[in-house]
Amino acid sequence: MVEEEGWVRLRIILVGFGVVGQNLVKLLLSRADDIYLRYGMKPRLVATVDSKGVAVSQSGLDLQRLLEVKRLYGTVAAYHDDGQRGESADIDLIDRKKGGRCRVEEIIREMDAEVLVEATPTNLNDGEPGLSNITTAIKHGRNVVTVNKGPLALAMPSLLELAEYNGVMLRFSGTVGGGTPILEFAKHCLRGDRILSFKGILNGTTNYILSMMEDGLTFDEALNDARSKGYAEADPSLDIDGFDAAAKLVIMANWIMGMKVTMRDVRFKGIRDVRLEDILEAKKHGKVIKLIASCDESRRLRVEPMSIDKNEPLCVNGTLNAVTFTSEHSGELTVIGKGAGGMETASAILRDLIEVREAMGMGIGLNRS
Amino acid sequence: MVEEEGWVRLRIILVGFGVVGQNLVKLLLSRADDIYLRYGMKPRLVATVDSKGVAVSQSGLDLQRLLEVKRLYGTVAAYHDDGQRGESADIDLIDRKKGGRCRVEEIIREMDAEVLVEATPTNLNDGEPGLSNITTAIKHGRNVVTVNKGPLALAMPSLLELAEYNGVMLRFSGTVGGGTPILEFAKHCLRGDRILSFKGILNGTTNYILSMMEDGLTFDEALNDARSKGYAEADPSLDIDGFDAAAKLVIMANWIMGMKVTMRDVRFKGIRDVRLEDILEAKKHGKVIKLIASCDESRRLRVEPMSIDKNEPLCVNGTLNAVTFTSEHSGELTVIGKGAGGMETASAILRDLIEVREAMGMGIGLNRS
Repeated sequence: MVEEEGWVRLRIILVGFGVVGQNLVKLLLSRADDIYLRYGMKPRLVATVDSKGVAVSQSGLDLQRLLEVKRLYGTVAAYHDDGQRGESADIDLIDRKKGGRCRVEEIIREMDAEVLVEATPTNLNDGEPGLSNITTAIKHGRNVVTVNKGPLALAMPSLLELAEYNGVMLRFSGTVGGGTPILEFAKHCLRGDRILSFKGILNGTTNYILSMMEDGLTFDEALNDARSKGYAEADPSLDIDGFDAAAKLVIMANWIMGMKVTMRDVRFKGIRDVRLEDILEAKKHGKVIKLIASCDESRRLRVEPMSIDKNEPLCVNGTLNAVTFTSEHSGELTVIGKGAGGMETASAILRDLIEVREAMGMGIGLNRS
Repeated sequence: MVEEEGWVRLRIILVGFGVVGQNLVKLLLSRADDIYLRYGMKPRLVATVDSKGVAVSQSGLDLQRLLEVKRLYGTVAAYHDDGQRGESADIDLIDRKKGGRCRVEEIIREMDAEVLVEATPTNLNDGEPGLSNITTAIKHGRNVVTVNKGPLALAMPSLLELAEYNGVMLRFSGTVGGGTPILEFAKHCLRGDRILSFKGILNGTTNYILSMMEDGLTFDEALNDARSKGYAEADPSLDIDGFDAAAKLVIMANWIMGMKVTMRDVRFKGIRDVRLEDILEAKKHGKVIKLIASCDESRRLRVEPMSIDKNEPLCVNGTLNAVTFTSEHSGELTVIGKGAGGMETASAILRDLIEVREAMGMGIGLNRS
């Protein structure tokens, strides 16, 4: 394979190949020409890791085949067993005795790549395996794009510091609002102005449940309905008890407000105790109860059910997310969009990849290549 | 005065010193330290022109005094008669016989400046005097930041081309949405994605009138109410008949969709014919009538009263503006904020100035200095 010029090259290690990871690969496939024409970059996947194995190719994995292998065998490990083999240099990284498995950290360390895309499931207990993956990548001079809230919720200040120290970028658009560019809006669209406070509906599952309760369902009925539609997990505690919203609030507070906080700095409460009567009573007065994540002017961080006016722009229904920023000069500004979704979140990763590539082109956060 | 290093310098010619212009000066005054610390720039006003005269100082006008002179005498022309004189070099530009007046174009041509801020009133008939001011500035290698919709609505494709040809930037954040960064959101926050269509409530006056009619007022009563609150002009035709929304739609279509269009390409209709009965009938079905400016998937541009669902994020009341973008990968995204206001619009100018300064720092659109 002819080596591309350095300025268009973006070699990616993708760890985590679930719905979001697969949608990213679909996006890279369907938009390849357009991404090159509009942003002058040719992303190439040099390694993909899922829970059962790994596929590597320094010259770039065949994306179509990668998706097909995953679909047929449930793991990318089968990539190297299925028809043509990867290059011999690649195969060294794979311990064949373990059935195609190898240590993820070795891949992150050893492959030539400009960026790690971290898309393993969120774990708010210890942030693993995302935290180790991200730390390893940064220490080895790789930029990181993550959609994994765990590591950021637990250690964002130190991760940002580590990235800065190592001269690489750490980006995480997809962690808040799915494809809705909430973080970018606050960071890039309000330059010259100052955000004084913000409040948001950051969790689609709880918003769906509360919207259903407004239509007269009890909490349990609404939760079951959310489950049947695939909006809630079997164990819905992450959503229901406010952990997910709190994690997103931590990310916003660090990134937008320049605070140095983690989950421990958020006072949060979920929606388990919201009673149907409360909701119906609020409704009589033109109000609705929503799970609101907020950073007030004193920079107190809170997640709690709150009654808000039905006519406020913030008041969205169903699985939508919304954030209202109060700025010093431009008043209240609200951004609304879908808060989740595989393709939506994948589009946020692509956005981050474009930013990483452009910063590299300008010598910002340039890592070894 | 000690000359600043070139990299922090941003010398501004401000033409138009009404509410927005004065708020810009207040903003530059109150935020001077912050603007320098955060964005590394020291904006300096070298000329200010209002309808009755001009104040110039190549070393930078005293902003506090400028505001005071305007307040006391109604024109900046008195700046040079009031206490200390400007530098002698400046005075040459002013024809004393005309009581401090001089030709604006001469100021734009002759003063050393990196950027023209054009804030004269919008004129949708021939775009003047904004059109001549902007054209002169671009031809003389000045970047332009404008909040004047007229020149853009009538000649945006050729103005953008002229700016590109001359290697300068033309920015116009404040022309759509006041301080709400609608244009930036679409242009910068959705990179990697594609906007397929959009629809918006772009005129606060008509939205206020329609909101009042929903509460039972007739069109004439609502219009009078808007007038008494200062939301509508003595001649409200620009708003009521859809010209203002159409002008903003033209700007969005050119900037966001890459179209090359002017007012003539918009089919538009105002709200004069909206009857109270229509609104009350829509209300029965959970709908509201709004003046919607839209660009559909076939890129047809329209402004017309339309019935939309009360629960749509786009459905905002009062003088708010809102735009919903339909993107290829991230679904529907809505931005809501105040659509007007002196300080809000001034903050949009500051945003543009920061962008111009940064582009200059990177050698993009660098003009003579």
